Amino acid sequence: MKHVVNSMSIATVAGTFFGFALILGAIIHGTNNYLSFVSLEGFLIVFGGTVANAFMSYDSNSVVLAFEAIWHMVKKAKATREGLNAEILRLIKWAYLVHSKGLPGLEGEVGVKIKEPLLRYGIDLVVTGYKPDIVRQMMNTAVEAEYERSITPVMVLRNMASTSPAFGMVGTLVGMVIMLQNIQGDMSRIGMGLAVALLATLYGIILARLICLPAADKLMQKEDVMRFRNYMVTEGLVLLSEKQSPRFMQDKLNSFLDPQDHFNLDEYLKKLAPKEDMQ
Amino acid sequence: MKHVVNSMSIATVAGTFFGFALILGAIIHGTNNYLSFVSLEGFLIVFGGTVANAFMSYDSNSVVLAFEAIWHMVKKAKATREGLNAEILRLIKWAYLVHSKGLPGLEGEVGVKIKEPLLRYGIDLVVTGYKPDIVRQMMNTAVEAEYERSITPVMVLRNMASTSPAFGMVGTLVGMVIMLQNIQGDMSRIGMGLAVALLATLYGIILARLICLPAADKLMQKEDVMRFRNYMVTEGLVLLSEKQSPRFMQDKLNSFLDPQDHFNLDEYLKKLAPKEDMQ
Amino acid sequence: MKHVVNSMSIATVAGTFFGFALILGAIIHGTNNYLSFVSLEGFLIVFGGTVANAFMSYDSNSVVLAFEAIWHMVKKAKATREGLNAEILRLIKWAYLVHSKGLPGLEGEVGVKIKEPLLRYGIDLVVTGYKPDIVRQMMNTAVEAEYERSITPVMVLRNMASTSPAFGMVGTLVGMVIMLQNIQGDMSRIGMGLAVALLATLYGIILARLICLPAADKLMQKEDVMRFRNYMVTEGLVLLSEKQSPRFMQDKLNSFLDPQDHFNLDEYLKKLAPKEDMQ
Amino acid sequence: MKHVVNSMSIATVAGTFFGFALILGAIIHGTNNYLSFVSLEGFLIVFGGTVANAFMSYDSNSVVLAFEAIWHMVKKAKATREGLNAEILRLIKWAYLVHSKGLPGLEGEVGVKIKEPLLRYGIDLVVTGYKPDIVRQMMNTAVEAEYERSITPVMVLRNMASTSPAFGMVGTLVGMVIMLQNIQGDMSRIGMGLAVALLATLYGIILARLICLPAADKLMQKEDVMRFRNYMVTEGLVLLSEKQSPRFMQDKLNSFLDPQDHFNLDEYLKKLAPKEDMQ
Amino acid sequence: MKHVVNSMSIATVAGTFFGFALILGAIIHGTNNYLSFVSLEGFLIVFGGTVANAFMSYDSNSVVLAFEAIWHMVKKAKATREGLNAEILRLIKWAYLVHSKGLPGLEGEVGVKIKEPLLRYGIDLVVTGYKPDIVRQMMNTAVEAEYERSITPVMVLRNMASTSPAFGMVGTLVGMVIMLQNIQGDMSRIGMGLAVALLATLYGIILARLICLPAADKLMQKEDVMRFRNYMVTEGLVLLSEKQSPRFMQDKLNSFLDPQDHFNLDEYLKKLAPKEDMQ
Repeated sequence: MKHVVNSMSIATVAGTFFGFALILGAIIHGTNNYLSFVSLEGFLIVFGGTVANAFMSYDSNSVVLAFEAIWHMVKKAKATREGLNAEILRLIKWAYLVHSKGLPGLEGEVGVKIKEPLLRYGIDLVVTGYKPDIVRQMMNTAVEAEYERSITPVMVLRNMASTSPAFGMVGTLVGMVIMLQNIQGDMSRIGMGLAVALLATLYGIILARLICLPAADKLMQKEDVMRFRNYMVTEGLVLLSEKQSPRFMQDKLNSFLDPQDHFNLDEYLKKLAPKEDMQ
Repeated sequence: MKHVVNSMSIATVAGTFFGFALILGAIIHGTNNYLSFVSLEGFLIVFGGTVANAFMSYDSNSVVLAFEAIWHMVKKAKATREGLNAEILRLIKWAYLVHSKGLPGLEGEVGVKIKEPLLRYGIDLVVTGYKPDIVRQMMNTAVEAEYERSITPVMVLRNMASTSPAFGMVGTLVGMVIMLQNIQGDMSRIGMGLAVALLATLYGIILARLICLPAADKLMQKEDVMRFRNYMVTEGLVLLSEKQSPRFMQDKLNSFLDPQDHFNLDEYLKKLAPKEDMQ
Repeated sequence: MKHVVNSMSIATVAGTFFGFALILGAIIHGTNNYLSFVSLEGFLIVFGGTVANAFMSYDSNSVVLAFEAIWHMVKKAKATREGLNAEILRLIKWAYLVHSKGLPGLEGEVGVKIKEPLLRYGIDLVVTGYKPDIVRQMMNTAVEAEYERSITPVMVLRNMASTSPAFGMVGTLVGMVIMLQNIQGDMSRIGMGLAVALLATLYGIILARLICLPAADKLMQKEDVMRFRNYMVTEGLVLLSEKQSPRFMQDKLNSFLDPQDHFNLDEYLKKLAPKEDMQ
Repeated sequence: MKHVVNSMSIATVAGTFFGFALILGAIIHGTNNYLSFVSLEGFLIVFGGTVANAFMSYDSNSVVLAFEAIWHMVKKAKATREGLNAEILRLIKWAYLVHSKGLPGLEGEVGVKIKEPLLRYGIDLVVTGYKPDIVRQMMNTAVEAEYERSITPVMVLRNMASTSPAFGMVGTLVGMVIMLQNIQGDMSRIGMGLAVALLATLYGIILARLICLPAADKLMQKEDVMRFRNYMVTEGLVLLSEKQSPRFMQDKLNSFLDPQDHFNLDEYLKKLAPKEDMQ
Repeated sequence: MKHVVNSMSIATVAGTFFGFALILGAIIHGTNNYLSFVSLEGFLIVFGGTVANAFMSYDSNSVVLAFEAIWHMVKKAKATREGLNAEILRLIKWAYLVHSKGLPGLEGEVGVKIKEPLLRYGIDLVVTGYKPDIVRQMMNTAVEAEYERSITPVMVLRNMASTSPAFGMVGTLVGMVIMLQNIQGDMSRIGMGLAVALLATLYGIILARLICLPAADKLMQKEDVMRFRNYMVTEGLVLLSEKQSPRFMQDKLNSFLDPQDHFNLDEYLKKLAPKEDMQ
C-alpha cells in the first residue's frame, strides 16, 4: 500500500509544481526586474490583517491548527477510501472473535492494539454489553462531536481566505492614498506608486487562492472521509453488539464501498496466509 | 432510441456552435488584428494557477476525472429520464420471473447479463433473501455513497470555475505592474501594455464560463438523474424482495415517472413481440 | 374568475410599463443620440455567450423550456392560491360521491373529466383500492419528481442570469483591447471606443435583470404554488381512500388555506344552485 | 405595556436619526453645493428598473405588500417575545375553563372575543373534539402555510435590494456612454459628466441599504416571531385537547420562553385581581 | 483553571497585537504624514450609515447587545469545551444523590446553588417527576429557543459587516462627486480629493473585517458551544429522571467529549479528596 501513497503524492506534487512553473514562467517571460514584485508594506498589511482577524475571530488553539493544516497540506488522510476495505476486514475478524470467544475475547484481543481513542470508546461500549441501539446512539453523538471539533480549522482557513483579499484591497488603498498625496505632475512616479499599491491586492489573492483555500479544501475532504469511515465503523460495532454473522457484516458494510471495491470474504479467505501480517 | 441520442446531441451542438459563432463574429467584425487577443503570459498565469489550485485542493484522482468531464461534456447520460421506462419494464420482467421460478430463478437469469456493479450488489441482496427493510437500508447507503463519490469532480470543476477568474485578475495585476514600471510618458505603449494585461482577465472569465461551469453543470445533472434512477431501482428491488405483483410494481414505480410517460403494462403486453429483443 | 386574471395581469403590466417608461424617459432626457446605445459587437458577445453556455450546461429540452418561460412571463399560474378553494370543493364533492356510490362511482364520474395526468394517476390509485399510506407514499414521490422536472428551466434561467453579466464583461474587455491597441493620442476616439465597450456590460446587466431573473422568479413561484396545491390534493386523495366524511375533509384541507379564505361547506351548500355549473 | 412600545420605538427612531444625521453632517461639511447630488436621470433609472423588475418577478399583490412593509418599517410586531407571557396566561385560563365547563364552555367563552383567524381555526378544531394528534397535524400545516404566505414580501424586498445596485450601475453606464461621446477635450465637462453618472450608483446602494434591506430584515423578524408564537399556541391547543392540567401547561409552554421570563402561575394567582381586566 | 483562561487570552491578544503591529508598521514605513489617513466625512458616512441600517433592521435591544459583543470580544465563553468535564462530574454527583436520597434530595441539594435559569428549569422538571420523554422534549424546545434568542446579535453584527463596506463606497462616491465638480485642471487637487474619497472605502473594509466580523464569529462560537453544552446537560437530566446508574451516565455523556478527554469516574474517585471543594 506504500507505493499508492507515494504515487498519489507524486501526482499532487507534480500538478502543483507544473502550475507554479507556468505562473513563474509567465513572470520571467514578461520582465527581468523581479524586485518590482516586492512590496514590504503590501505584504505586512495583507499578512498582518489576516492574522489579526483570525486571532480575533477564533480561539488561538484553532488558529494554530489552521496553520498546521497549511503546513501538512500534501499529507495523506489517515482514513482513505482505499483503507476502508481493511477496516471491514478488521471488523469481520472481530466478528469471528466474538463468535468463538464471546465479547470478553474481543476485549482481550484488541484492547492493547487499538490506539485510536474513538475506536477504543466504541469497543468499550460493545464489550460493556450495551444494547445495539444504545451503542449506535452514543457512537453517532461521538462521531458528530468529533467532526464538529475537527472542522474548526477549516472554518479558520476559509475565514482567512475571505479576509486576505480584503486586506489586499486595504493595502492598495493605503498605497494609493500615500501616492495620491505626493502627486506633483510626475507621471512616472504615479505609475511607480500605483504599481506598488497594486501588489497588495496581488498578494491578497495569492494568499487566498494558493495557500488558504487549498488547505481548507484538503482538510475538509480529509475530515469528510474520516466521518464517513467513522459511521461505517459505528455500523460495524453495532453489528458486533448484535452478534451478527460475518457474512451479514460483509454485505452490510459493503454498502459503504464503491461496488467495484466490495470486500469479498471468500476471496480473502483463499489468499489469507500472505496477508496475515496485516493488522 | 439511437436517433433520440443523436437529435439531442445535434440540438446541443447547434446551440453551442451558434453561440460561439456570434462571439467570433463580433470579434471579426470589430478588428482584423487577431494577434492582439493572444497573450502567452496571461494564458500561463490563468491556466497554471487554476491547475495548481486544483491539484493542491483535491486528490489527483478527482482532478483527472474533472478533466475527463470537460472532455465528455457533450456525451449523453447513462441513465436518462427517457430510459427510466425501460428500467421499469426490466424490473417487472424480473417480478414475473420471481413469481414463476422464485428468487433462485432471478439469480440464474440476470446473473450473467448485469454488468453494473451497484445493480449486481442489489440483486445479490434480494437473492440472498434479506428482508425488504434490510435491502432498502443497504441500498440507500450504497446509493448515497455512490453519489458522494461521483460528484467530487463537480466540486473540482466548480472550484476551478471560481479560481480561474481570480488568476485572471492575478495576470492582469502582474501585467499592470510590469507596464506601470516602464512608463516613460509614451501613451500608446501604456495602452498596449494595458490591453495585454486585460487579456488575462478575459481568459479567466472564458475558462470559467465556457469550460469549467458548463462541464460542472452537465456532470451534476447526469449524477442527479443517476441517483434518481438508483432510488427507483432500489424501490423496485425492495418490491421484488417483498414478492409484490407486477401490477403493484408498475403503479409504485410509475410514481417516479412523468405522468405522461407512465409505463403501461397492458399496452406493453399487446406489442410485446416486436420489442422482445430489448435487454 | 376571468376578470381576476385580467386585473392581476393589468397591475403587473402597468407596473412593468411604468418602470420601463422611467428608464426610457431618463435616457431620452439625457441624450438625443440614441444610436450611441447600439453596439452590435456587444450584443453578439453577450447573447452568444449566454446561449452557448446554456446549451453546454443543460440538455436542449430544458433550454427551450427556459426560453418559453421568458415568453410566457406574464401568464397566470395554472394553480393559484385563489383556485385552491375550488380544488377543495371538488374533493369534497368526490367524498359525497364515494359515500353514495362507493369508489367505482368516483371512477365513472371523474374518469372522463380529469385531463391532468398527475390527478388521473392519483385517482387511479384511490380507485384501485390501495391503502391510504400507500397512496400517500406514491403521490409524494410523484409530486416531488414532478417538481424536480418542472424547475429545471428555473435553473437554466438563473444560470443565464449569472452568465450574461460575465459575458457583458467579456464584451467590454474585448472592446477595450481593440480600442487600446488603436490609441494614437486622439482623446475623443478613446472616449468613443470606451463608450462602445461599456455597452456590452450594460447589455449583460439588463439581460440578466429585466429578462432572465424575472422569468426565473415568476416560474419558480408558479411551480412552488403548484407543488403546494399537489400536496393538498394528495392529502385530499388520502382522505378519500380513508373514506373520511366531507366535514373532516373540509377541516383538514382548510389547514392549507389562508384562514380568511377557509372553505365553508355550509355557506357553499346555501348558494349551491348558482355555482352548480362549476366543474 | 404601552410605554414599552414607545421606548422601543424611541430607541429605534433615535438610532436611525443619529445615523442619518452623521451622513448628512458629512455631506454638509464637505460641500455647500447640494444640487450636485441631484440627478433626475439616475433616480429614474434606479427607481424605474427596480420597480419594473419587482412587478415582472412577483405577483402585484406581493409587491404592494412589500411597499407597505417599507412604510411600516418602524411599527412594532403583533406578537412580541414580551407578549408571549400573556398568551400563555390566556391558554391556562382556557385550561381552567375546559376543566370546569368542558370543551363547549371554551367555545361559548372565547368564540366572540377571538378575532385572529388562525387562532379561531385552532379553537374550532379543539372544540370539534378532534384528537390531539390531528389538531397538531392540522395546526402545523396551517402555521407553515401562513408563514410561507407571509414572507413573500420579504422575498420581494430582498430582490429589490439586489436589483437596485444593479440598476445603479446601469444608470452610471448610461451616464458614462453619454458623457464619453460628447468628449471634446474639455476636462471639467468630463468631470461633471462623470459626477452625474456616479450618482446613479450612489442612489442604487442607498435604496438597497437604507430602505429595502432594513424593511426586509424587520419584516422577516416579525414573521419569525409570529411563527414561533404560532407553534407555542399550537402546543397550547394540543394540551387543551388533551385536557392536561394548567400546571403541566405552564411547565410545557414555559419551555418556549426565556427562563428569566417564565410564567409563574402561583405568582400570577396572588396578584390576580388587579390584572383581571386583561383579556 | 484560572491560568488556562489567561494563557488563552494571552495567545489571542498576542496574535491580534502582532497583526495590528504589522499593519501599523507598514503605514509608518510608507509615509510620515499620518494626517492624510484621517477623513472626518468618510468616517461619519461609514459609521452613521452602518448604525442607521442596524437600528432600522433590528430591534434596539439586539443592536445594543451587538455593540456589547464588540466590547467583550476577547472575553472567554461561559461554557468552554474544557468545562464540559466538570459538568459531567456535577451530573454524576447528582445521580449519586438521586440514588441515595431520591429526587427530593436533588431539589434540596442543588436548589440553592444553581443560579443559571435554564438549568434551574431543567432540574425543576426532573424534580417534579415528569417522564424522561417529556423532560427531553421540553428541554429541547427550551435549548433551541434560548439559542435563537442568543444569536440575534450575531445577525446584527454580520449585517453591519456587510453594510459598512457599502457605506464605504457611498462615502467614496460622495467624495468623488464633490471632487469632480470642483475640477479646474489642477492635477494635484484631483489627487488630494481622490485620496480623501478613497479613505471612506478603507474605513468601511476595516470596520467590517477588524471589528464586526471577528465579534460576530467569536459570539457565534460561544453560543454554539453553549448549545452543545445545553444538549449534553439535557441528556444528563433525562438520565437523572430515568434514574440511570452513574456508570451509564458517564458512558453516555462521554460521547459528547473528545475521546482523549473522556471523564473517568474511577480515576476521579481515586483523587476525590483534593477536588472535593469543586462545586
